[in-house]
This record gives sequence, C-alpha cells and structure tokens, in this order.
Amino acid sequence: MGERLVVIGGDAGGMAAAAQARRRQGDLEIVALEMGRWTSYSACGIPYLVGGGVDRIEELVVRTPEQFRAMRIDVRIEHEATAVDLDARTVEVHNRTHDRTFKLGFDLLHVATGATPRRPDVPGIDGPHVLGVQTLGDAANLLDEAASRRPAHVCVVGSGYIGLELAEAFRDRGASVVVVEQGPEVMSSLDPDMGAMVSRAMRSEGITVRLGERLEAIEDGMVTTSGAEIAADLVVLGTGVAPDTGLAQSAGLATGPTGGLVVDRRQRTSADGVYAAGDCCESRHIVSGTAVHVPLGTHANKQGRVAGINMSGGYATFPGVAGTAVTRICACEVARTGLSEAEATAAGFEYTAARIESSTQAGYLHDSSAVTVKLLAEVVSGRVLGAQIVGGPGSAKRIDVVATALAAGMTAEEMVHLDLGYAPPFSPVWDPVIVAARQALSQLR
Amino acid sequence: MGERLVVIGGDAGGMAAAAQARRRQGDLEIVALEMGRWTSYSACGIPYLVGGGVDRIEELVVRTPEQFRAMRIDVRIEHEATAVDLDARTVEVHNRTHDRTFKLGFDLLHVATGATPRRPDVPGIDGPHVLGVQTLGDAANLLDEAASRRPAHVCVVGSGYIGLELAEAFRDRGASVVVVEQGPEVMSSLDPDMGAMVSRAMRSEGITVRLGERLEAIEDGMVTTSGAEIAADLVVLGTGVAPDTGLAQSAGLATGPTGGLVVDRRQRTSADGVYAAGDCCESRHIVSGTAVHVPLGTHANKQGRVAGINMSGGYATFPGVAGTAVTRICACEVARTGLSEAEATAAGFEYTAARIESSTQAGYLHDSSAVTVKLLAEVVSGRVLGAQIVGGPGSAKRIDVVATALAAGMTAEEMVHLDLGYAPPFSPVWDPVIVAARQALSQLR
Repeated sequence: MGERLVVIGGDAGGMAAAAQARRRQGDLEIVALEMGRWTSYSACGIPYLVGGGVDRIEELVVRTPEQFRAMRIDVRIEHEATAVDLDARTVEVHNRTHDRTFKLGFDLLHVATGATPRRPDVPGIDGPHVLGVQTLGDAANLLDEAASRRPAHVCVVGSGYIGLELAEAFRDRGASVVVVEQGPEVMSSLDPDMGAMVSRAMRSEGITVRLGERLEAIEDGMVTTSGAEIAADLVVLGTGVAPDTGLAQSAGLATGPTGGLVVDRRQRTSADGVYAAGDCCESRHIVSGTAVHVPLGTHANKQGRVAGINMSGGYATFPGVAGTAVTRICACEVARTGLSEAEATAAGFEYTAARIESSTQAGYLHDSSAVTVKLLAEVVSGRVLGAQIVGGPGSAKRIDVVATALAAGMTAEEMVHLDLGYAPPFSPVWDPVIVAARQALSQLR
Repeated sequence: MGERLVVIGGDAGGMAAAAQARRRQGDLEIVALEMGRWTSYSACGIPYLVGGGVDRIEELVVRTPEQFRAMRIDVRIEHEATAVDLDARTVEVHNRTHDRTFKLGFDLLHVATGATPRRPDVPGIDGPHVLGVQTLGDAANLLDEAASRRPAHVCVVGSGYIGLELAEAFRDRGASVVVVEQGPEVMSSLDPDMGAMVSRAMRSEGITVRLGERLEAIEDGMVTTSGAEIAADLVVLGTGVAPDTGLAQSAGLATGPTGGLVVDRRQRTSADGVYAAGDCCESRHIVSGTAVHVPLGTHANKQGRVAGINMSGGYATFPGVAGTAVTRICACEVARTGLSEAEATAAGFEYTAARIESSTQAGYLHDSSAVTVKLLAEVVSGRVLGAQIVGGPGSAKRIDVVATALAAGMTAEEMVHLDLGYAPPFSPVWDPVIVAARQALSQLR
C-alpha cells in the first residue's frame, strides 16, 4: 500500500489536485471529503441557471463523484471534516448521512475548504428568504425560491459580479429588482468612473440601483437601508465571500493578512506535507506583490493542479494572480485586470490613468459598438499596472492582452507595438487596448 | 520657411507618418502625393462593402484630403510620383487631372507606395472582368460590376483572407461562387489541418472550393484551371500582393529578400533622410528574426507613426511583426500568429504542435461553440512559437493572448499560469488558449 492523500473539499481546488495526483502517481490512495452533495461544479454558472441560460443544475457539475471514483479517487459526499490533528496525522470526519464520526489517517493533506458568503450583521439576516450564492446547495435553494414562491420583488445586497449577474437573472424572470450598494458605485473592483457606466446600463434596463446605502435590517417582505425601505420577497447576498479557514486554523495552519491560508509558490501551507488551493487560500498579486484573496474558479483549478503535481513528487509553481475578472451585465461587457486607481495608490505607485473611447469593430460596420478602455501605467518606468474595460459585445476578453502584458511586465510603449489581430469585424485598425496604451504613453511624456 | 517633407502615397503608411510629423513639428512643410482619389482608407473593409455590411464607399475613408488640408498637410490627389532623384532631392510628379509633370524638392522623403495585386501570368488575365482588391479604386470597380452586371457566377482565384471574404460577400449577394486554390488547402498561412476546417465551413454554406488546381486561362465567361472549366462572369484575384517598389528601386533604395524596401527599426531606408512604411516595406518577424512581407493596415499605421516621430526629431522604433491575422469566413472565426508548422520548420526550430478542442464559453451555456486551438512550442526551451485558432463566435481575438506572449518570449509553462478573464459567457474555466499551452507542456515533458 502506498501513501494516503486526504483532500478536504470536493470542488475545483480540491479535485483538480486529486485528479492531477492520481494521473501522476498510480499507487497513491486518494480520499476526498465533500460535505455537500456535489463535486467539481461551476458556482459561476449559478446566475445563468437562475436566468435560464442553463437548463438543469446537474449541467454545472464538471465531474460527478461517480466519475472521480472511476478514476480511483474515493470521493465521499455528505462527509464533513470536523478536525485535523497534524501530529497524529488524522482527520476527524462526520458522515452526515449516517450521523457517524470517524478518524481518517493521512500522509498528505490537501485543504480546499473554499469560502463562505459574508453575511452583514443586521437583524433578520438569517431569515428564510435571505440567500447567499456560493455553493450548488445555494443554487438549489435559489431555484426553489424562484420556482415555488415566484418572488415579485428581489433585493440584491452588494454589487459584486455574482450579485449583479443575479440581479439581471431575476429581472429576466420578471421580478422587479433593487440593488443596494454601500459604496459610491457598483463593482468596487472597478474605479467609480467605470462602475458608473455599469450602473447606467443596469438602470436603462429597468434595474433599480441604490448607491451609498447601508443595509440596516431585513424583515419579512422588506429591506431597510440607511436611505430607504425596499419591498423584497427575496434577498440575495452579493456581499462577497470570506475564506473558510476555521478548520485549518484550529489545526494550526497559518493565515495571512487577508484571512486566507498562507501558501508558498508550490501551494504548500505552513505545515509539512499539507497543501491548500482555491478560495480558502490567499495569493500573491503579480503587480503589487502583496497578498490578496481572489476567490475564482480559474485560480482554484490552477492552484489545485500545481498542488497535485507537487504532492505527487513533481515540481510546479503558481506565480500569482493579476486580479483579472470579466462579466456581462445587461448590455455591458465589463473587465478589469491588475490594479485599479485605489489599489495602485495603496501600493505606492505613481501612475498615469489613460481613458479612451473606441469601437469594438471597424467603426463603419453596422454591428460596431462603443468601448471604453482605461489603462494605468507607472510614471518614469512606463510599466503597465492595470486596465478596465466597459463596452458592447467583443469588449471584455480584450482584457486578456493586458493580463498577459502584466505577466510579462510590459511597458505602455511595448504594448503600442503588439501585433494584435486586426480585421474589420474584430477591431478598428488600432485595437482599443493599443489606443489606450498610446494615450498612456503620450501622458507619460 | 522650415524643411519640406514629401510623402509618396496617401494611404495609412503615408498619412500616419504625415499626421504624426505635423503634430510634432509645426513648421514642417508637408506635401503628400496620392495617385488615386482617396486618402487613408480601409482596404480591409472592401469585402464588407461588397457584402452589404457597409453602405457607402466613402465610409471606408478614415480621413479625407480636406481633413488633412485642415491639418496643414498639402494633400494632392491624382498626383503620381514618377521618379525620385536622391542627389538633387527632387520628386518628379505627374498631375493626372491636368496631365502636367513637374518637379518637387524635398528635405525629407517618406515612401509609402503600398503593394499591387499579383496577377498570374495566364491568357486573359487583363480582361475587363478580372479584378484585384487592393485600392478603393478596385472597390469602386467591384461595386460597379456587382451593381451593373450582377454576376451570377464568380470565381475567386487564390484563397487568402481578402479572397475568401469576397467569396462570401458575393455569395451573400446571391452569386454562385467557386474558389480556386493551387495549394493543398485554403489559407496557406494556416497549417493544412486548420485550413481544412475553413474549407469545410465554406462548403457547408454553398461555396465551391477547388484545391490543388492551377489557373491556366481566363476567357469571357469561363475560367480554365488544371482540373476544370468554371463558368465565371467575374474573376476576383485573391492571389496576394507584392510590394510596389518600382519607383524606390529606380531611385536606388535597397530592397530585401522579400522584394520589400529594407528599413531599420526607425523605418529609415538605405538612403539618408528617406523613410518608408506600410505595404512597400519588409519587416522583421519577432519569432524567426527573418525578413517578412506582411501587408496589413495595422502595421502600416504603426510603422507610419514610428517614421513620423523619427522624421520630426523624435525617437521611436518598430520592433517587428508576429504575423497575426484574424478573419471571419462563413460561420468560422479564423486566427493565426507567429510561425506555422511550415514556417517553424523552415526557420530551423524543433517544435511540438499541440492541438486541442474546447469551447468558446462554459460548455453548459446554450450559446457555447466549438473552438480548435493549435499551439507550437520549441522543444527544450518551451518557448511558444505560434498558434492558430478556428471556431465559432468569440474564437478569433483569443489569438491576441498568444501574440502578446510571443512579444514577451513566453514559454508554454508561463502561458498556463496567465490570469485570463473567466466568466461563463466568455470562457470555460480553463481558457482554450491555456488548454493548448497545457497540452504543449505535457508533450514537451
């Protein structure tokens, strides 16, 4: 018998590691504990499930427990890890189905406990019609609410990506939707001037956006904020998530300034033979160099892969995150990468911010839409620090050029000369991203 | 009076230089000679004009002669430069409107004479219904043919980007269209396995594609190839273009192995005070390091800008081209950058070619389409050498990530960790480009 790897958490960060380790090391025994019913699913798909772009909840599952078992990964659903003893090398496990607790020894441990929605501490927050959006269990609850109670008035608290996507999804189902955000604009990961374009688009499609209002209380049928009373049959929490590290902290694993588990470039935690990946970890930001918590499936998958390679005797590193995010809200495509103005200032960069208007296609084509690109570059060095894009179809994925440029440490001047694809249905002759780099360059001079 | 700059050629390579020089040096006298009637236009837009995506020929004009004159650039249309005397510093100019020839002195000269369609040397090639597609004059002729004669049978000879775009445009106008290509597949800039996906898409939309056939003769109403006789009221030449360097060569400017003018990184030709930009020049390929001729408006604009900055006392360099190209043909988006297999072999690279199938969105969304990505990486170093993409909506511009990675000299491993935008409407959790990089990485090991 070879060594035993125990994986805690059956979503991307856990199962990408398990799959990678299995592929590389045939004699490793792998047990994966998942406290819910599903493995490896796309939580990012939940708004599309609610909005009708996806037919069944099962379609969001990338790989089922049965499929993992066929790969000789012993997945146990409805099994919750309740304690870890790093000295004894055991995990205490609660089998929820049979309400039975047992201990499981491990040689290697991989922690992928994910994140939990932040619940503002106000009266009524634990009411039956106040739902978070983090797990497929949450998705099932949302679908139940939508189908059985057909909420006519939905209030979304917070305006992150998933919150706004759900606002649109409930609007598409015919509900009247109000978004409450305590900051000056929706999407605090954007600068307010870019966020304002998103809230404009939402309002023009009939979604009410209330800014600068704090949630104060939730009653049945009513949300009270610092500025209004809002009718609401259903309250959706889009207030972000916090890394779920209670178990790992109790075991003695170190957490960092963001509250996430500290891992090195190989996804090793502070304890020998213990790895971690996904939303429970913090990452290094490749531009600022500081620790950040960016809960996204794409990172969970990559970190899981890296952990799996290292746990099975290989070598791989996760270099960090650029903070790239894209979404579509109403008629807007929205994207960001690197540092926003607030983040660049906090990190101590002296920068110039170039903001340009262009079009997604050659301007003379009927289908061309407007796009706004904002690009930040460091003064003196010219190094690109980040970018934000808001515009029509064909806007968002242009951010990938900047994300790649950030990974390479490119300057605005180097970006001006990038040989990006040009043809009338795809771009003006100067790609909007390059126009922004040119503008930054001229501001730097 | 300051110095005088004479620009030969009123399209992108010429006028981007003129505009930049004007902006930077107010006392420079600038005279621009254009032998046709239009300045600064998008020849790439011609297929969309023919197909109906653009309403009027004038919409393809980015800036008119009047607009340039308002910037104090003395644009003279219907003026052809017929000779250059580098010692006397004069250009001989033929005013076509008044059939008058005169000499014009210059201190600085900028050559932007563009390219001319290659015309295969076969009987009938100079017939009245055999048209190239390079200038707006050609576009006017094509529109005239389409409107007045309403060709029922169109034969496109050659299968480059513009040829195939025009094949589709005439199909959209109701013509029966045959494409004749002498190579093994359409689009020789792609590897044949990727080109085959494009010809399949064209055939499935009713365009006849004849491969491995050489053009032998053109008669009125008929094209004869090495394999067939094809009814054709109109023949469109999509056989590529050659740099138009007759004038410059006569003056003694050096040309390179591609036939294009040799320029350095600052767009200086072999003669003092003489610059060049656009389709008449050759460029350095940033991956192979060799001289290439890539006639594209995006390069003409960038090179023109660089020449204009240098001519007006500034400093700018054009680092070269990656060979990026994108287009949409029938239901296919098509893209390529860097080296194809044939090019990588010719350049002496030992490489691995990874080819993967993925989807443009999260697979569970209704609108998701298939996409194929092929990525070449150098053995031992892991350096990415090039990529090709064929797929549904949202495929082509993904090539920009690889184009940016090529500019940075990234390896496949570095590409795997790029923080590309992920959300269900834009990408699976592993972006198709990253899936290809992963596949290349595993082949390299």
